[in-house]
Amino acid sequence: MGKGGKSHQEGEENMAAWLVDLNTLKIQPFKLPPLGPHDVRVRMKAVGICGSDVHFLKTLRLADFVVKEPMVIGHECAGIIEEIGSEVKNLVPGDRVALEPGIGCWRCDLCKEGRYNICPDMKFFATPPVHGSLARQVVHPADLCFKLPDNLSLEEGAMCEPLSVAVHACRRANIGPETNVLVMGAGPIGLVTLLAARAFGAPRIVIVDVDDYRLSVANNLGADGVVKVSTNMQDIPEEVERIFEVMGAVGVHVTFDCAGFNKTMSTALSATRAGGKVCLVGLGHNEMTVPLTPAAAREVDIIGIFRYKNTWPLCIELLRNGKIDVKPLITHRFGFSQKEVEEAFETSARGGDAIKVMFNL
Amino acid sequence: MGKGGKSHQEGEENMAAWLVDLNTLKIQPFKLPPLGPHDVRVRMKAVGICGSDVHFLKTLRLADFVVKEPMVIGHECAGIIEEIGSEVKNLVPGDRVALEPGIGCWRCDLCKEGRYNICPDMKFFATPPVHGSLARQVVHPADLCFKLPDNLSLEEGAMCEPLSVAVHACRRANIGPETNVLVMGAGPIGLVTLLAARAFGAPRIVIVDVDDYRLSVANNLGADGVVKVSTNMQDIPEEVERIFEVMGAVGVHVTFDCAGFNKTMSTALSATRAGGKVCLVGLGHNEMTVPLTPAAAREVDIIGIFRYKNTWPLCIELLRNGKIDVKPLITHRFGFSQKEVEEAFETSARGGDAIKVMFNL
Amino acid sequence: MGKGGKSHQEGEENMAAWLVDLNTLKIQPFKLPPLGPHDVRVRMKAVGICGSDVHFLKTLRLADFVVKEPMVIGHECAGIIEEIGSEVKNLVPGDRVALEPGIGCWRCDLCKEGRYNICPDMKFFATPPVHGSLARQVVHPADLCFKLPDNLSLEEGAMCEPLSVAVHACRRANIGPETNVLVMGAGPIGLVTLLAARAFGAPRIVIVDVDDYRLSVANNLGADGVVKVSTNMQDIPEEVERIFEVMGAVGVHVTFDCAGFNKTMSTALSATRAGGKVCLVGLGHNEMTVPLTPAAAREVDIIGIFRYKNTWPLCIELLRNGKIDVKPLITHRFGFSQKEVEEAFETSARGGDAIKVMFNL
Amino acid sequence: MGKGGKSHQEGEENMAAWLVDLNTLKIQPFKLPPLGPHDVRVRMKAVGICGSDVHFLKTLRLADFVVKEPMVIGHECAGIIEEIGSEVKNLVPGDRVALEPGIGCWRCDLCKEGRYNICPDMKFFATPPVHGSLARQVVHPADLCFKLPDNLSLEEGAMCEPLSVAVHACRRANIGPETNVLVMGAGPIGLVTLLAARAFGAPRIVIVDVDDYRLSVANNLGADGVVKVSTNMQDIPEEVERIFEVMGAVGVHVTFDCAGFNKTMSTALSATRAGGKVCLVGLGHNEMTVPLTPAAAREVDIIGIFRYKNTWPLCIELLRNGKIDVKPLITHRFGFSQKEVEEAFETSARGGDAIKVMFNL
Repeated sequence: MGKGGKSHQEGEENMAAWLVDLNTLKIQPFKLPPLGPHDVRVRMKAVGICGSDVHFLKTLRLADFVVKEPMVIGHECAGIIEEIGSEVKNLVPGDRVALEPGIGCWRCDLCKEGRYNICPDMKFFATPPVHGSLARQVVHPADLCFKLPDNLSLEEGAMCEPLSVAVHACRRANIGPETNVLVMGAGPIGLVTLLAARAFGAPRIVIVDVDDYRLSVANNLGADGVVKVSTNMQDIPEEVERIFEVMGAVGVHVTFDCAGFNKTMSTALSATRAGGKVCLVGLGHNEMTVPLTPAAAREVDIIGIFRYKNTWPLCIELLRNGKIDVKPLITHRFGFSQKEVEEAFETSARGGDAIKVMFNL
Repeated sequence: MGKGGKSHQEGEENMAAWLVDLNTLKIQPFKLPPLGPHDVRVRMKAVGICGSDVHFLKTLRLADFVVKEPMVIGHECAGIIEEIGSEVKNLVPGDRVALEPGIGCWRCDLCKEGRYNICPDMKFFATPPVHGSLARQVVHPADLCFKLPDNLSLEEGAMCEPLSVAVHACRRANIGPETNVLVMGAGPIGLVTLLAARAFGAPRIVIVDVDDYRLSVANNLGADGVVKVSTNMQDIPEEVERIFEVMGAVGVHVTFDCAGFNKTMSTALSATRAGGKVCLVGLGHNEMTVPLTPAAAREVDIIGIFRYKNTWPLCIELLRNGKIDVKPLITHRFGFSQKEVEEAFETSARGGDAIKVMFNL
Repeated sequence: MGKGGKSHQEGEENMAAWLVDLNTLKIQPFKLPPLGPHDVRVRMKAVGICGSDVHFLKTLRLADFVVKEPMVIGHECAGIIEEIGSEVKNLVPGDRVALEPGIGCWRCDLCKEGRYNICPDMKFFATPPVHGSLARQVVHPADLCFKLPDNLSLEEGAMCEPLSVAVHACRRANIGPETNVLVMGAGPIGLVTLLAARAFGAPRIVIVDVDDYRLSVANNLGADGVVKVSTNMQDIPEEVERIFEVMGAVGVHVTFDCAGFNKTMSTALSATRAGGKVCLVGLGHNEMTVPLTPAAAREVDIIGIFRYKNTWPLCIELLRNGKIDVKPLITHRFGFSQKEVEEAFETSARGGDAIKVMFNL
Repeated sequence: MGKGGKSHQEGEENMAAWLVDLNTLKIQPFKLPPLGPHDVRVRMKAVGICGSDVHFLKTLRLADFVVKEPMVIGHECAGIIEEIGSEVKNLVPGDRVALEPGIGCWRCDLCKEGRYNICPDMKFFATPPVHGSLARQVVHPADLCFKLPDNLSLEEGAMCEPLSVAVHACRRANIGPETNVLVMGAGPIGLVTLLAARAFGAPRIVIVDVDDYRLSVANNLGADGVVKVSTNMQDIPEEVERIFEVMGAVGVHVTFDCAGFNKTMSTALSATRAGGKVCLVGLGHNEMTVPLTPAAAREVDIIGIFRYKNTWPLCIELLRNGKIDVKPLITHRFGFSQKEVEEAFETSARGGDAIKVMFNL
């Protein structure tokens, strides 16, 4: 048995938000697994809702993953350590931690090469059949729980998850002080990408969306320019011209497509300069019709982005030292009752002025 | 004035093959430019026909390039130095050389970063409005003329050009002794890619085509496996399974799409393992409909390939030390009369058993 | 309990070669640890002697590692699976396997970045206080036991360990078909580096040593040139000239210093062309006096090499497909009696014509 | 003949500061070369003194370069375009420009690979036998003259040269938001390296020097910590401990040795964490005695830094957008009379509170 952890022994029943059927979430008991020697038990305090959570709720599937059994939902989270396994050295009960949700196998070649994010045996919160973290308590490996400094809130800790997607994309795209950046889409992922690209030193960041409100948020978060576009494919040439004008003479070195539609990707490929990169971050359309060949003929590479790896320490540092402020992105907060859970997911699904919806447990 | 070069002064009229109109090539005089201090004058001896030459002949255009004025055609070439400019140190008249056809501006940022192949001001043989090299003589910068060792023929020298495309692709894809390679398309570029990937150490190379003859050539050139496919999109899943079987358990690390069609690219994206790369070498369809998102979600990157840079010394070394033998690819030879030029282009356009058609001038 | 493994239950006492004191090895019982769910029990069949084993025997230390308690020695090994843990899927009893000797923690940032070879908590065979593998049986994680194909012997399996050092060095130095290689030192590591560099495509490899016999071995293994040198620092300029002559005009892109002395490193730094790399593989002198600044001013980088990571599959493939043949390196063989163990280490320590000394258990 | 340029035609004699003998500078006429089609004629306005200028003055040599004939000195410079060559498109007379001092050959393999800074045929201001730029006027290639935005002074333009060394070092070391940086030496290069590392996103930068005044300057420029050290080799272990304390738990990822002495390099190698890099920027001692092997065994690589390439646009952008402010580094200013030139060099040679000494012409 581990160290700490009174409350659990005293018979508290652990409750969690289960996705039990299409459009149906239920708060129900969730039995914790035994605490291994390298695990910790964490009392969840802040859990954000991700677009993928909403997608599972509305369709019971995402890409190749299908929810076949009831599953605890949620994966953007932070909490307080209550109990630690016998071999855990770096954490003690009472520590406030942000949780990285995916556990690699560490036995396959991808894990050993440092690309554990694409490990085929990854166990990831709320990716079926693995349970998620929208629960009073979870058990998780200690090395995936990262201590928060005093000046960061638990909500900011939970925001490390979406921010990690952006940080991983900026790393793969090698963003630095000479990389002009274009971001397609000003939703939650587009906005954290804007923040991360700035923190990586991008001198000039232009962001594109169809929605005035989102563009105004991007403006407030420090975009150097915004371009409002239509959903009409025919407008691409004219919109690319406007992107060029707003970006300036040097042009776009890296585009992050945070939407993933035919139009955003086609625009990305056309707007990026020779030798540049387009990162496909948003996973919208499955099959895409895009001008691949003219882009390839300018050696514009397309970089795939899947989740993240080794990002929590950097995210925490960027939040701690103030290079990134994610607090403006948290627009709605809910408690953890049956009613509030339903409302929170509805709010997130509706979009509009809801950027990040957060549970305070 | 330069050193060497008697014959030119004695009034020989330089003749070249001009693309004068759609489907019309004419051997006509071609006035040489003055010999600069860093230039050489080369008597052409071997010139190959490239698919792009045929494309210009049949359509007067390729990608964004349009032939508006009569233009000398040809760019795969080797010859003998006849005269050298006053500052040329590394060559003397009589040297047998292979010619790299593109001249970067050396003033733009891409040239200075070492990516001169995508220099926007590149001057490239037979890319309008620049004249090509299917001519008795050309003037070219000495640093783009590479001396051939004694054991290489001038035809092998001319083959450095198509081989360079493959070498550049292998470099960008970082092919080495642990990279299993899939090649889509067993045309001339697919076949040189097979040869180059082998020379870069690829332990296992599988090649895919619709044509039995081409696959038999690939087999003879050392492919570890060949897969015959249809042109039908619906067959992709079954064909990918066959590729997996032929490739073996480790799977495909890098796919070179040497055709560039919806079907080849879709197959490439599906057949490449997580964390791998697809190089788009063949520029077939302009717009493509392909499953981009599932590939990106496995971090399969798409790498664009345009021409080459710094490849001649490596090609010559690989031919010299026998790691690559391009001679079997030269299937047809023609002289440089009006009639033979026409026949040679027809032969190349017809395909079939014609892989590389070569002029001996 | 695991699957397979009769003999162990029947009370066979496991025997191992213990380093019990300075210059003193004793065959004594070695109690196996319990078999974890992801472990296998392996009957050792071939164990090679490494220079570091000899160094521990002669001094009880190596770098910062000190032998304070009796320790089982040996780490270059291959054997036959006798028992597998409950979760092991990829191996069955009877499989012939080569063992990777180091177990990363998979919790530190270096492991997660794919650089587990420099994990500060690495557990490595025969690096104190961890026991080695010169034993009748060992228990080891299944994912570090790599199945040998039928055409490889268990001795070749054991050779994957020294070969891995060379493969890791070639990877870090990015050896390929355009990298001319200089190897300083024709001892066991220099010779496997020669073989690995060739397999990675190096077109020209020159090797340097003070010993005629070793150079003749290098010649037989396919070196393109050998240079005999003195141990006198003053001879460096003249010897560098001879290296240049033997290497040819293009020069040395990468030098592997497989000795690690002032003289070899000084020669390496002087002989490598601008923009090249020197890999320090041999760990001879601790502090070195070398012309670091002139090398830095030509942007010759010095790359440190420590052990290896993810190398077994590649080594096995290179041995399987015949790109590398390590059999000529195995010059002496011994059985596993007290007397033979002592003789074997003496043979290895003496050097001379002993390259690799191997136990057959 | 070019466009613009009245004053030159009217017979003004161009004056320059010539290094005529040991410790002897003389202002004398300097005949300009003819203006080529891609050249510009620049009226110099700000020229800084570099340590290498002082070194040439005091010894007539630097590394392998020896001053055998009188030579115009100076290479950190900015001025105003007076005349442009016939092919120059990007500049007009009156433009304020910063000058990159080195002209690559663009014919060697290093230039073509984008490493023109180590081109063996580089022509570089004030590196014998090439004349420098401490002159009323110089002729220079237009593509090496970079237009300054309105908010930058000509002095800041001249500062792009030392800043370029730092920017090139940060690029080669891949500095970003997760790279903790240690700088050895708080002289002019150490200070610009501090500024550049910050602009590249380094979250924590500690700087080390023997001099309190320099450390106080570093503090004012934003160092996160400073460590005062001795010149005594025995103090290294204790000083490394202090560096660790000031840097914090994560440790040093990259060290820039901006001094280049046995002690600074030994400290750098010991203080850098496993898998990190040491960049040798300062070229102090020629031969060094340093603990190379223990560093290599932790895979700490040593990266050589020579001058820079493609850095002016980035330097100008970083100065323009305020990420870097070099103005505090300019501590002394002089006019361009014989007396002032002598005084300026004495001031620079004396060190003390003189960081950057600047001529205003």
